[in-house]
Amino acid sequence: MLEKVDLTKKMSKEEYRTKMERLERELGELQRKCKRLDIPVMIAFEGYPAAGKGAQMGELIHALDPRGFEVHTVKKETEEERMHPFMWRFWTKMPAKGRIALYDTSWYRKVLSEKPEKRAFDSILSFERQITDDGVVLVKLFLAIDKKEQKRRFQKLEKKKESAWRVSDADRKHYEHFEEYEKIYEEMLQQTDTDYAPWHIIESMDRRFATVKIYTIVINALAEGVERATAPQTTGKKREVYIDDSDLRESILNKVDLSLAYGKKEYKTKLKELQSKIQLLHGELYRKRIPVVLAFEGWDAGGKGGAIKRLTEKMDPRGYMVIPTASPNDWEKAHHYLWRFWQAMPKAGHFSIFDRTWYGRVMVERIEGFCTIEEWQRAYKEINDMERDLYDAGAIVLKFWMQIDKDEQERRFKARQENPEKQWKITEEDWRNREKWDQYEAAVNEMLIRTSTPHAPWVVVEGNNKYYARIKTLQTVVKAIEERLRR
Amino acid sequence: MLEKVDLTKKMSKEEYRTKMERLERELGELQRKCKRLDIPVMIAFEGYPAAGKGAQMGELIHALDPRGFEVHTVKKETEEERMHPFMWRFWTKMPAKGRIALYDTSWYRKVLSEKPEKRAFDSILSFERQITDDGVVLVKLFLAIDKKEQKRRFQKLEKKKESAWRVSDADRKHYEHFEEYEKIYEEMLQQTDTDYAPWHIIESMDRRFATVKIYTIVINALAEGVERATAPQTTGKKREVYIDDSDLRESILNKVDLSLAYGKKEYKTKLKELQSKIQLLHGELYRKRIPVVLAFEGWDAGGKGGAIKRLTEKMDPRGYMVIPTASPNDWEKAHHYLWRFWQAMPKAGHFSIFDRTWYGRVMVERIEGFCTIEEWQRAYKEINDMERDLYDAGAIVLKFWMQIDKDEQERRFKARQENPEKQWKITEEDWRNREKWDQYEAAVNEMLIRTSTPHAPWVVVEGNNKYYARIKTLQTVVKAIEERLRR
Repeated sequence: MLEKVDLTKKMSKEEYRTKMERLERELGELQRKCKRLDIPVMIAFEGYPAAGKGAQMGELIHALDPRGFEVHTVKKETEEERMHPFMWRFWTKMPAKGRIALYDTSWYRKVLSEKPEKRAFDSILSFERQITDDGVVLVKLFLAIDKKEQKRRFQKLEKKKESAWRVSDADRKHYEHFEEYEKIYEEMLQQTDTDYAPWHIIESMDRRFATVKIYTIVINALAEGVERATAPQTTGKKREVYIDDSDLRESILNKVDLSLAYGKKEYKTKLKELQSKIQLLHGELYRKRIPVVLAFEGWDAGGKGGAIKRLTEKMDPRGYMVIPTASPNDWEKAHHYLWRFWQAMPKAGHFSIFDRTWYGRVMVERIEGFCTIEEWQRAYKEINDMERDLYDAGAIVLKFWMQIDKDEQERRFKARQENPEKQWKITEEDWRNREKWDQYEAAVNEMLIRTSTPHAPWVVVEGNNKYYARIKTLQTVVKAIEERLRR
Repeated sequence: MLEKVDLTKKMSKEEYRTKMERLERELGELQRKCKRLDIPVMIAFEGYPAAGKGAQMGELIHALDPRGFEVHTVKKETEEERMHPFMWRFWTKMPAKGRIALYDTSWYRKVLSEKPEKRAFDSILSFERQITDDGVVLVKLFLAIDKKEQKRRFQKLEKKKESAWRVSDADRKHYEHFEEYEKIYEEMLQQTDTDYAPWHIIESMDRRFATVKIYTIVINALAEGVERATAPQTTGKKREVYIDDSDLRESILNKVDLSLAYGKKEYKTKLKELQSKIQLLHGELYRKRIPVVLAFEGWDAGGKGGAIKRLTEKMDPRGYMVIPTASPNDWEKAHHYLWRFWQAMPKAGHFSIFDRTWYGRVMVERIEGFCTIEEWQRAYKEINDMERDLYDAGAIVLKFWMQIDKDEQERRFKARQENPEKQWKITEEDWRNREKWDQYEAAVNEMLIRTSTPHAPWVVVEGNNKYYARIKTLQTVVKAIEERLRR
């Protein structure tokens, strides 16, 4: 894409002034519209060193209401960031709905600074697809100058004492290997120029020309986003039930042997043994900087809480976090549904233990109609992609489904109601959900099939006997850690 | 995805009979509807050896009108197929609109029989995305049985003389390495289970159960396709012009130096030299089995024909094919727009020279509104993917844009009109297209930027002087071949 571009385009001062007056007004207006319509906007500035990314961001924000935008400068990864999957820092820095985020270099930094491997591009494509599917207006700008101009700009900076420091060794290296870098840039542009997130090359030899072009592209992108958001909704296609295939669909849950049980004594012995094992292994994971993600799902009163409690009881509390997942609050709703989970992903050497998870998308949100059919159908792949990113970053990822039968649930609900200390645990909603047992069961079965992967398997835990369920959970965790440490 | 599936599901004869009666009727009806609505359908049968793919295909076609379907048995690649990119055989075997194609194993064969490399999955994902975007109903079935059952079926076949041959060495190998194959299957399912082309696992221990499930899935997919096709169209969003950025957009064409020229004598000497070079190189390409794809685009009367003629003049006619591209005929329109070009791609060692190309999608189809905005915007990536597949299969891919200016075009048009032998070359349409010069110029510039790639570069040929244009074309071809042969 770079090859064919004429970098030397220019604009006169006069033309620039006339155009900018109008463009600044339009951009300000559009920012207000996007805010009103809850449209999140992300603008990524990439390009050659000394192409003027900083200066152009400065120009762009002239027209913006400072309460509505944020600037992220993407430097070398911090210690914290290095300890997470590489897209983590961007997932956690997504703008809320109605806000504009500008990125001074972006998620492309990774594929530019390192030898780009195929997986990194996959992660990027998946990220951009997910956020644009979710309504983000994404603008990707690539500022280009030629080698001579780069040298001229470096020399100008180096001549003066007060600016000489701004030319880094990396910059000099870039100049020396200009042609090689150009190839890397070209590959990057190629691999990631999509219809949902196209690249815009900005000819940046002349600053005025570049500014006007950037304004124009951003304005057009926002206007398009506004149009999309206000277009008559083709409200999520309602799938008819054509032929009822419910008896043909896979049922994993109803073949689970719920009679499995341990006696109290056996339980206590095993528990003690497993808990000290986990304590030891936890230390080793920490030393080896291996992150662990444990996801707990299951029927209401299925025993998630009890299993998590036994799991963590003897663990060093500085090394794990339990994340209870309730319905999303307003701020969470103002982001992509995976955003809040990305926030909580463990850094290397730590545990994140989720009590309910991102799988809400394909269970409660699916069944209650909190998202469209397209959205939950898309979610299987989105979730698999996320868990793959975690795995690729070295994490152990395990997912537990705590299975009990309907009678057992009723027993537990009633027991809770009768116990004054546990009454808070049971609500009207629990009884309502119970009525949709069959719908949930079908959704869970589909979820288990579509998202059980070698790198992030589902473990169905036979839960009618709590002792058995807890021991199986702990055993599974221990086994997974031991296998990982042997690798 | 396989791990959680209960393969042992069964269905009684009675239930089977009752269900099938209704299912066969429904499927027949839906086939007729799909025909009427011009919906193409592709059904891929994958799965373990002896899982019953053949038998199940036999069951499925019971209900189908034989004039409306075709069965493709995907065996080991033929000599012809091995000499093309691996997706070529499937691109060329796409069903026309309104027809159903069944595949006894499919494009997944490649990733199963060989060590799956990342690029092969990319090609598959791109293929499935493109055809479903284009309205194909795609059903992917995976028939699974367990190891014991596989052995039982093999033994049963082997016991009888007349069926023993049906168990191949490859089958036996599959049985021996059952668990390893399972991992490969799992990876394949993982990588390619998408919202636009999901996998369906068919529990195939019990044939009746499997048949009913397959019928049900196919019926539901067709019904969904029918619903989509008849839903009120959200006719391709009409993009408003927000801010006119035409003066900011890249113009490659207007910086071309059209004064470049050769004199007749110089031309003749160079031409002779280049033509004999090509003759020689052609032989070497043939011996090394390297395919060559040359695409010619340019203004009407830009000199495409003349350049192609000089290029091929001395070449062995058995080793190249010139493909003139007119507007698609009805049969071609009944397929994906890339289909007819895939048909014409060269086998290894041969040249395909296209006089006008698949780039019509982003030029004439874009400007005349023959496709939607979404369609031509998607096309850049689709085209880049196709050319990448060709390149990955070892091809040299070069694209020429024959550039002349508006005055030169007028001169040539008039000359043609005045020359009785060339009058046929000029039509009213040519004059009409000329009126849209500026629109075409903008489209061409965008095309050159978005689809010029290192593996399939665009070469803009300065064409006002025909001698110069032809020599440059030949020189570029020679240089590209020489470079490739040195690799």
